[in-house]
Amino acid sequence: MSLVVVGSVAYDGIETPHGKVDRILGGAATYIALSASYFARPHIVAVVGDDFAQEDFDFLASRNIDLAGLERVPGKSFFWSGVYSHDMNDRQTLATELNVFADFDPKLPAAYREKPYLLLGNIQPALQRSVRAQVSKPRLVGGDTMNYWIADYRDDLLATIKEWDFLLINDSEARMLSGENNLRRAAAKIMEMGPHTLVIKRGEYGAVLFRQDFHFMVPGYLLENVFDPTGAGDCFAGGFAGYLAGENVGLGDPHVDEKTLRRAVIYGSVMGSFCCEQFGPNRFRTLNRAEVDERFQEFRDCTGF
Amino acid sequence: MSLVVVGSVAYDGIETPHGKVDRILGGAATYIALSASYFARPHIVAVVGDDFAQEDFDFLASRNIDLAGLERVPGKSFFWSGVYSHDMNDRQTLATELNVFADFDPKLPAAYREKPYLLLGNIQPALQRSVRAQVSKPRLVGGDTMNYWIADYRDDLLATIKEWDFLLINDSEARMLSGENNLRRAAAKIMEMGPHTLVIKRGEYGAVLFRQDFHFMVPGYLLENVFDPTGAGDCFAGGFAGYLAGENVGLGDPHVDEKTLRRAVIYGSVMGSFCCEQFGPNRFRTLNRAEVDERFQEFRDCTGF
Repeated sequence: MSLVVVGSVAYDGIETPHGKVDRILGGAATYIALSASYFARPHIVAVVGDDFAQEDFDFLASRNIDLAGLERVPGKSFFWSGVYSHDMNDRQTLATELNVFADFDPKLPAAYREKPYLLLGNIQPALQRSVRAQVSKPRLVGGDTMNYWIADYRDDLLATIKEWDFLLINDSEARMLSGENNLRRAAAKIMEMGPHTLVIKRGEYGAVLFRQDFHFMVPGYLLENVFDPTGAGDCFAGGFAGYLAGENVGLGDPHVDEKTLRRAVIYGSVMGSFCCEQFGPNRFRTLNRAEVDERFQEFRDCTGF
Repeated sequence: MSLVVVGSVAYDGIETPHGKVDRILGGAATYIALSASYFARPHIVAVVGDDFAQEDFDFLASRNIDLAGLERVPGKSFFWSGVYSHDMNDRQTLATELNVFADFDPKLPAAYREKPYLLLGNIQPALQRSVRAQVSKPRLVGGDTMNYWIADYRDDLLATIKEWDFLLINDSEARMLSGENNLRRAAAKIMEMGPHTLVIKRGEYGAVLFRQDFHFMVPGYLLENVFDPTGAGDCFAGGFAGYLAGENVGLGDPHVDEKTLRRAVIYGSVMGSFCCEQFGPNRFRTLNRAEVDERFQEFRDCTGF
């Protein structure tokens, strides 16, 4: 099955306690698609400048990612750089240069419009909504957002997520969006805003999936070395939605299997954990599906009782 | 089976966003014993002043807690007071009055010295060691400590935990004790210091049990209302050690069953979560074993996949 992924494809400058790279492939859509590619065929909708390197294009294509929707325009690609704190729980942004991304107005290629699985990376809510309006037979639509849109584009954001099946955000965003400090009550409020499925990511502490009738918690995988957390949340999203697309499970289905949802959360966690093992998206240059399934089993071993 | 519990029995003044009590029964040994009482018969070794109320004595006795080792001396009982932050993740200590606890020199009653299960609450490491030396046939010895002892009594603490089967501490204490920021590497270092079993408590995020050959993670129970987190860590300890004592499982046993250890961690989590539902130890006035087992099952439902 296919998963249409809309978001940024960018270059990042990253500094962690383990080292520094001045320029490496990045962006939400990149991480989501790389992660999802282990489960489904991702189709990226994004824009890059004429500085976008052929080797990065080739890398994405080598992971079975369809790049027909990756627009190339004159100018420079989106660039972000930041420095992580010693414990890597905080990061400071040094530069955000939108460049060609400033005028991003995502248009789905005709061939994507009937695809049923759509994941919207963290971009302006109005753009997310315009993409949603372009798909004709959605079985699974959802995505990510961030504090900036919650604070300054609230009405836009509410109109956007009203049409979503699922929302993936982190715990501080969930508190901000709902105005509730308690996670369970925050989740209940957010599910009244539209998405019937909510995944709250808690960084190193794991994630919680909420539905009306149950919730499912997974602790974070304990890595011995967190090399670079950049993209981990997007890889979670890619693993989660990619797995559902691969299983051809729409979240709106009346009898969606709870077990499948739980497994999707675990695959999200698995992919997020791998992402942190090397700089940028480099872990996905060598990661294979057997390793993914081995870590899935490790989650079972570490949490079963 | 019996569990000997050594630590403070005290009065607390507590203020949380949900209310304020000027004086309520508290202390590590109180919480540990109340929690453990659902699984084993606790025997408290502690000291209180002549202000210790008969009704508090009666409450503990009503929970099948043996108080033969609760010494009563002239003076005032240990008193602590503090205020919790809005999200209850931080607290500020307003008063710490050691009173009769300043001269606490725990002596096990003769009848306790052959009891095989011993849990040492957070007191001066040298005192913990002297108690350990008083038991003749231990099958399970362990306990808690805190940042103050780690920083200023390090040698004493290392000599103490060297003789323990298990250590229960929180994540910041584990990082401080080991000098390692990464939890997995911190755990490996601490297990080289003596305890072959380490439980790292992560507050609302749950806990991780480490052994040489495996680790087991449990996410925190998602309470809809955290009323007062005072004592939750001690209740975790009481549930963990109380369950093992109740099952008559010594951690030093060569073939200790991994499943039993995992269940002990869950019971610890269950008891810690109940503790937060009312002020001080008040939840244990009504909590029954059926509710405990129901929540154990809830943990299974929320984490299984």
